[in-house]
Amino acid sequence: MRPNKIREHWAAGRPVVNGWLAIPSGFSAETMAHQGWDTLTVDIQHGLIDYQKAVEMFTAISTTDTVPVTRVPWLEPGILMKVLDAGAYGVICPMINSREDAENLVAWTHYPPEGTRSFGPIRGLLYGGPDYPEHANNTIVVFAMIETLQGLDNLEEILSVPGLDAVYIGPSDLSLALGCRPAFDDVEPPVAEAIEMIAAKAKEYGKFAGCHNGTPEYALKRIEMGFQFVTIASDARLMAAASKDALAQVRDGLT
Amino acid sequence: MRPNKIREHWAAGRPVVNGWLAIPSGFSAETMAHQGWDTLTVDIQHGLIDYQKAVEMFTAISTTDTVPVTRVPWLEPGILMKVLDAGAYGVICPMINSREDAENLVAWTHYPPEGTRSFGPIRGLLYGGPDYPEHANNTIVVFAMIETLQGLDNLEEILSVPGLDAVYIGPSDLSLALGCRPAFDDVEPPVAEAIEMIAAKAKEYGKFAGCHNGTPEYALKRIEMGFQFVTIASDARLMAAASKDALAQVRDGLT
Amino acid sequence: MRPNKIREHWAAGRPVVNGWLAIPSGFSAETMAHQGWDTLTVDIQHGLIDYQKAVEMFTAISTTDTVPVTRVPWLEPGILMKVLDAGAYGVICPMINSREDAENLVAWTHYPPEGTRSFGPIRGLLYGGPDYPEHANNTIVVFAMIETLQGLDNLEEILSVPGLDAVYIGPSDLSLALGCRPAFDDVEPPVAEAIEMIAAKAKEYGKFAGCHNGTPEYALKRIEMGFQFVTIASDARLMAAASKDALAQVRDGLT
Amino acid sequence: MRPNKIREHWAAGRPVVNGWLAIPSGFSAETMAHQGWDTLTVDIQHGLIDYQKAVEMFTAISTTDTVPVTRVPWLEPGILMKVLDAGAYGVICPMINSREDAENLVAWTHYPPEGTRSFGPIRGLLYGGPDYPEHANNTIVVFAMIETLQGLDNLEEILSVPGLDAVYIGPSDLSLALGCRPAFDDVEPPVAEAIEMIAAKAKEYGKFAGCHNGTPEYALKRIEMGFQFVTIASDARLMAAASKDALAQVRDGLT
Amino acid sequence: MRPNKIREHWAAGRPVVNGWLAIPSGFSAETMAHQGWDTLTVDIQHGLIDYQKAVEMFTAISTTDTVPVTRVPWLEPGILMKVLDAGAYGVICPMINSREDAENLVAWTHYPPEGTRSFGPIRGLLYGGPDYPEHANNTIVVFAMIETLQGLDNLEEILSVPGLDAVYIGPSDLSLALGCRPAFDDVEPPVAEAIEMIAAKAKEYGKFAGCHNGTPEYALKRIEMGFQFVTIASDARLMAAASKDALAQVRDGLT
Amino acid sequence: MRPNKIREHWAAGRPVVNGWLAIPSGFSAETMAHQGWDTLTVDIQHGLIDYQKAVEMFTAISTTDTVPVTRVPWLEPGILMKVLDAGAYGVICPMINSREDAENLVAWTHYPPEGTRSFGPIRGLLYGGPDYPEHANNTIVVFAMIETLQGLDNLEEILSVPGLDAVYIGPSDLSLALGCRPAFDDVEPPVAEAIEMIAAKAKEYGKFAGCHNGTPEYALKRIEMGFQFVTIASDARLMAAASKDALAQVRDGLT
Repeated sequence: MRPNKIREHWAAGRPVVNGWLAIPSGFSAETMAHQGWDTLTVDIQHGLIDYQKAVEMFTAISTTDTVPVTRVPWLEPGILMKVLDAGAYGVICPMINSREDAENLVAWTHYPPEGTRSFGPIRGLLYGGPDYPEHANNTIVVFAMIETLQGLDNLEEILSVPGLDAVYIGPSDLSLALGCRPAFDDVEPPVAEAIEMIAAKAKEYGKFAGCHNGTPEYALKRIEMGFQFVTIASDARLMAAASKDALAQVRDGLT
Repeated sequence: MRPNKIREHWAAGRPVVNGWLAIPSGFSAETMAHQGWDTLTVDIQHGLIDYQKAVEMFTAISTTDTVPVTRVPWLEPGILMKVLDAGAYGVICPMINSREDAENLVAWTHYPPEGTRSFGPIRGLLYGGPDYPEHANNTIVVFAMIETLQGLDNLEEILSVPGLDAVYIGPSDLSLALGCRPAFDDVEPPVAEAIEMIAAKAKEYGKFAGCHNGTPEYALKRIEMGFQFVTIASDARLMAAASKDALAQVRDGLT
Repeated sequence: MRPNKIREHWAAGRPVVNGWLAIPSGFSAETMAHQGWDTLTVDIQHGLIDYQKAVEMFTAISTTDTVPVTRVPWLEPGILMKVLDAGAYGVICPMINSREDAENLVAWTHYPPEGTRSFGPIRGLLYGGPDYPEHANNTIVVFAMIETLQGLDNLEEILSVPGLDAVYIGPSDLSLALGCRPAFDDVEPPVAEAIEMIAAKAKEYGKFAGCHNGTPEYALKRIEMGFQFVTIASDARLMAAASKDALAQVRDGLT
Repeated sequence: MRPNKIREHWAAGRPVVNGWLAIPSGFSAETMAHQGWDTLTVDIQHGLIDYQKAVEMFTAISTTDTVPVTRVPWLEPGILMKVLDAGAYGVICPMINSREDAENLVAWTHYPPEGTRSFGPIRGLLYGGPDYPEHANNTIVVFAMIETLQGLDNLEEILSVPGLDAVYIGPSDLSLALGCRPAFDDVEPPVAEAIEMIAAKAKEYGKFAGCHNGTPEYALKRIEMGFQFVTIASDARLMAAASKDALAQVRDGLT
Repeated sequence: MRPNKIREHWAAGRPVVNGWLAIPSGFSAETMAHQGWDTLTVDIQHGLIDYQKAVEMFTAISTTDTVPVTRVPWLEPGILMKVLDAGAYGVICPMINSREDAENLVAWTHYPPEGTRSFGPIRGLLYGGPDYPEHANNTIVVFAMIETLQGLDNLEEILSVPGLDAVYIGPSDLSLALGCRPAFDDVEPPVAEAIEMIAAKAKEYGKFAGCHNGTPEYALKRIEMGFQFVTIASDARLMAAASKDALAQVRDGLT
Repeated sequence: MRPNKIREHWAAGRPVVNGWLAIPSGFSAETMAHQGWDTLTVDIQHGLIDYQKAVEMFTAISTTDTVPVTRVPWLEPGILMKVLDAGAYGVICPMINSREDAENLVAWTHYPPEGTRSFGPIRGLLYGGPDYPEHANNTIVVFAMIETLQGLDNLEEILSVPGLDAVYIGPSDLSLALGCRPAFDDVEPPVAEAIEMIAAKAKEYGKFAGCHNGTPEYALKRIEMGFQFVTIASDARLMAAASKDALAQVRDGLT
């Protein structure tokens, strides 16, 4: 089976730099995949993307060495199994709030006996190779998002679940959960503390930790803080921000 | 009929700042339309976009005040009429090489008696209003691209055609035509001269002039040179460049 | 944040006249949006529409002042959050049968602390404006469908849930639930009674009430009965009925 | 090969009642096909439809006995051959202005030796049956639109072309061509005369004649006048008009 | 209502030969439907297909007498009701593990009083006919997949549920569940025993039994063993295998 | 620029074995690309595929080493340039009938000074690499189809055109042109002679020759006859034939 570069980076102690895809288009995904991201995450939760477009995007990413990851809309077995069958090598699941949630997440993403994933890895076989069935359980990387009060309360129980590879933090949701205003980077103190705590606890339990960021600066801070998987903005945000900059230059130049 | 802001800007002596769309997606088009571009051009020629996606993108742009423009793949009546029926308020036609080409372009984009456009402005009526049929001929803006040796040779004949509103320059094609390497901004001297000449001749014949640019700096130079319609890069380029920058910051920070 | 005209109509004591969309097409949605409906509901439950097409339809509706509403296929957090992120300003959820159902509906459609909606209002920000996060909870309108025996039994408990704005009645399902044949308007007596009862109870609990109708006549009756949100047939039904009429006129004329 | 009901109706002296499709959706096409139209025309010219959606619509129509017809955007061999390969049993070509145009139209829609259609009737074989290749030339019906001054001038030459089955009139374009305002039914006198003349000349040359109408009343008048193929409005217009009616009833009822 | 040929075959003691669709395309579905399969199953679970494409495929199948069946991704009411509304005449639900699962499956696929399916059979009415509402409960065929240890343990309880028509075996998942390697035909002994047992028990409880196979040979064995519904490979597998064969013949011929 | 394996095979004296794609789906294209074809041709002429789907299919093919080729619907500059911009490495153009046709084909597929292709290789840069502009003219392979009487008459003139790489024969169209019944392999004698003649003449003029076949046997015969590019049936035909075989085995086994 094609090895998962996420695991290779982690084994070598290298952080993984992740891009984010919210635009439902194979071409924008392929363009992003040619910029040098280690991984690209097709966001089926908050991105304007559903399963059929996600498949087109996984395919587009597969023209390069960038690893296709996805975020599912919810902890639901149907979509979790469908994205894996379609060849995702990493999956991020939002709002994991309890040990039971984490156990379900692991079960639905692993074949028996480790889990209860149904068999039929249709594009997985194309992308991963014919021995996909034997190695999928140990190749695919599964992230649980910690972003609610419940998730914080049950963090150690969640981190204790075997088969879970990593946790992932959405600072905006975590901020809302802690009664703060939503933000990516410049979060309020309780959120900052929670983020540090999650990174520390993950390490303690032998799990990897990932974090969503709005800027490269913050991604570097998170890496320094111990995060091994950092996201930097998204296709749509990069495009919008670059547009605003370019327009401002012209408008300013004209006046 | 909803007025065409391109004409309003020109009447007021203001240059039009145009964005470029190559990603076949309504959402990326809508996101771009919210950044403040005067116009957005759906590129059906070199963009990865065909008619059906272009309609979705015109619709997405129509949620804002940004004016929907499009570039057709070729001087062909079928697609010219279809994009107008779908509500485009400006159309850029590549490779206009002769007076006959320019006359056909005008004919196929204007209703009788000015032209031979077939009647059926299905989405044009939704976007423009019920009086679209009476005013379309004087509202929609038509650009002829000057980008070949023939086009340069016949420039004055092309500029003499009534009903043609403007010319548009693709510096890359013009460079190739003049035996130079393709470039957007930093073109070789013969191309630079041709560009200046086209702007001057257009003015002489009472036509507007537009130019494709790769950067805001060059857009400003072109405006200074007399261009009234300037394009600054595209959705895909802005996204790719911003990705490269962000990645470089992280990679540099790590070493 | 762009105000929700549903709330403005209700605040002014005006009923909201709603159209229904079952055809998966941005163009038919845009055409409908230009006819003057107060709101248009993209039916992801019984319409032949899934999320990706629904986004295209929300966008098409957003070219006008008509408010985009949607009906989700089921009380499931993934799709509820996705349609809100995509800019829906109203959401109708089928088969709310208990207080717990209603509480989940409210939780999944409101940000903390009122609920547990995950943060990422990607197209919501485009449609609603940059202050969407602060005002979404009080702007978006949430309807619970009362259409089962359980729902009737637990009606007062459901109506007691804070954050629920309104109930919505599907007379066909309610008919089936009460052992009657499915109908929109000319329902059997037990259904008629239930409908009146629901409207009365909703008023008592300070909630708004909506009803699905097959004809304008019935919509008017429902308004008179106290309903503040009335649906009149759907795109597909209107088109089919008008076709049948037109064909009948020609066939009759020929014989 | 599945017989073409258009030819059967004509052989029996019955007029064909045609519906018009401008909405790019298989479901709306299938819904229309269940209303009893003899034929349905997928309008790739002025409808918001391109080839890929047209195929989906032909398929949807093929679930019923309604005959799939299409209007191409222009007299261009690529699209003419593609729609026939996709199973269209009738094709309407806009703006046939000369004998040469009509000869090209016939050539591009017929296999050798009658024409130069390229061989590859991929969905034609599914819809028509395995003997499609032998019978396609005599089964498919080809309409030339007469809608320009040139077309009127060259009418008899056009009607003389063997292999052309019928002419079709778009009253709006014909009106514009004759310097009148565009209209479907209530055309100005010069247009009315031209329409009558075309019907008479078609009969004289042994061709069938079709006409676009806005109402059943006018379709009946056209049949009486000798037309054997009458169109009555379109999916989008029927839906829009029915919406306007329904809304007016409610708004009136409320005041 | 259009009768369900699955029930007709079963009533006549004839096994049903089922094809499998994993390619998200109306054209490949229509091509398959013309080959003579009794039924075709649109696989929304492991196929690369979501709801919107499934509808296009049901429509394509409906151009023939082949019966449209589908497998949903999971036991979830939203998608179960949507595929039935879209006209599926058979539904296969994966991973039915308990009596409660089976009861939910029956409830969500039957109108009251037999179940709680919500009313709105939009394309069902087109495909089935206007009396669909009265007969759907007794016409549509519902299969529960038995493919887990729990499912085996609770087999008799599952088979006791009224309204469930049949069970369906996925030998790969069953193999994994029993600690064997996944296979379609040549399964390991414990799986072979389980398959025989399921067929026998189904008969005992008056239910039909279906099985997934990789080859016609095995399909025949399963029929002999008492299965009344047999699947033979899929569109993608048939195409891939035939490609490999054709290529091998050329490569061999060249050396 | 990524080298074109077609040229590498030809330089090494190896024939190219080509598969054919008529199903509009990225997944079926990707599945085919994993079977070992040297090249896969996306048929936009007779396949049920338009440009937007073709791009998705080129992308899917690009996940492997198989070379993406396409057949355009007609000798028309718009689509020829669009497929090259989208990354096709080979293009087959139907119905080249004269030296002028062949010259246009070469012009429209090569940048100046060899031709007049417009500059904007958007996905070509992703697939081919950043030096695509310098090498595209010598990398991409252009085939002219010889399939009409005119094409046969003007064969030597066509073969004399510099920049044309190869000819391609569609035996069905050639059969029709010669007054024979359409066939792929077992063609009538005049067609057989023409095919041999074309291969011989191509060799004489230093061009490569390709041929469409229905079976591996015939592909081998054509290679022996001197053809260096052989097509073997298509995705849809392989799938249909394999279905028919599998079904026949079951039906036979049952009786």
